[in-house]
Amino acid sequence: MKVQLENVKPMDIEKRSFEIITEELGDKKLVPGTELVVKRCIHTSADFDYADNLCFSPEVIEKAMAAIKDGACIVTDTQMAKSGINKRALARYGGEVYCFMSDKDVAEMAKKNGTTRATASMDKAAALNKKLIFAIGNAPTALVRLYELIQEGKLDPELIIGVPVGFVNVVQSKELIMESGAPYIVARGRKGGSNIAACICNALLYMIDNRRD
Amino acid sequence: MKVQLENVKPMDIEKRSFEIITEELGDKKLVPGTELVVKRCIHTSADFDYADNLCFSPEVIEKAMAAIKDGACIVTDTQMAKSGINKRALARYGGEVYCFMSDKDVAEMAKKNGTTRATASMDKAAALNKKLIFAIGNAPTALVRLYELIQEGKLDPELIIGVPVGFVNVVQSKELIMESGAPYIVARGRKGGSNIAACICNALLYMIDNRRD
Repeated sequence: MKVQLENVKPMDIEKRSFEIITEELGDKKLVPGTELVVKRCIHTSADFDYADNLCFSPEVIEKAMAAIKDGACIVTDTQMAKSGINKRALARYGGEVYCFMSDKDVAEMAKKNGTTRATASMDKAAALNKKLIFAIGNAPTALVRLYELIQEGKLDPELIIGVPVGFVNVVQSKELIMESGAPYIVARGRKGGSNIAACICNALLYMIDNRRD
Repeated sequence: MKVQLENVKPMDIEKRSFEIITEELGDKKLVPGTELVVKRCIHTSADFDYADNLCFSPEVIEKAMAAIKDGACIVTDTQMAKSGINKRALARYGGEVYCFMSDKDVAEMAKKNGTTRATASMDKAAALNKKLIFAIGNAPTALVRLYELIQEGKLDPELIIGVPVGFVNVVQSKELIMESGAPYIVARGRKGGSNIAACICNALLYMIDNRRD
């Protein structure tokens, strides 16, 4: 087989990729205003299921961009998601990214309470007393704990990105978040991941940058 | 809607997930010896396409495990993939993980040569003079450069994990790697990602640990 490479300059690869995604989406209906988030998830995964499974609470994109511009910080449930978020773009608005999963006090709290470290790290985040966006790409137990904290009046998040991936309690934990009353972006079903969590954060950051409003 | 959570202990979630994956794969034929790699990719993505798209060169699993046990290091093309690899497990055999994408000299070399930073970081890796496994989840240009370096006799990798995701030259770059003569694990087609690259490394590490041979 002779392999033929397409001649696209490094700086044009992302643009060309988004053109292909737009082309292949055809006349697929997306929620107005959410297109760039949906397309970036497809760009990150090459999986067009995200055109169907992403669910958005009312006006969540505008609310999320306003929160970021107001200095909101992002909490992740994996170092991988933290690593994938454009921290320089976030820092321009005063925000930073936290992941407490490897913290010693979180490990101790989890052990003491018989929970996952993800649960314990949500408790640690809730105690921060900051404007927070949660980007959860791995642990359904993190979403369950966020739901409980909201119900208990201990947390009022700016946004929950609920995109854990997997087979045990993943589907259910996302449904819980959609009933929590918090603004959400959720990938309904089993799919998601730390890469998807990070890319949704980046999509929001790049939407703010392009608008320059 | 009443959400019903499944009662699975934190430590049993991964085991239960693999049971569900095995169940849903049914009598799907997988290449003998590769099952744990395939299942971990499905576990990481909830995407059963990996049961079909993963391609393995002859005896690659045994070769890869031998290389790791012999102290091979892993080179990634994203900080995210580096972040996802179990570095403690790798260190037990003397290996470490490198990602040169944010290095100043790589940025300068890329600018000077009009290439991507991924291309330049493969050149930097090839000059290391170490046993190397490449885990490429993002940049097709990294795979193209690895192919060239092999053809030029400048690189003899232990393994190439070729799983970039995307729409421009991704499909082609993977076909190139399968013609390179190097041992490979490739996700044929558009799918893959930094998470998949990391999880294949972890699958190999965990297979060594479980065998304890």
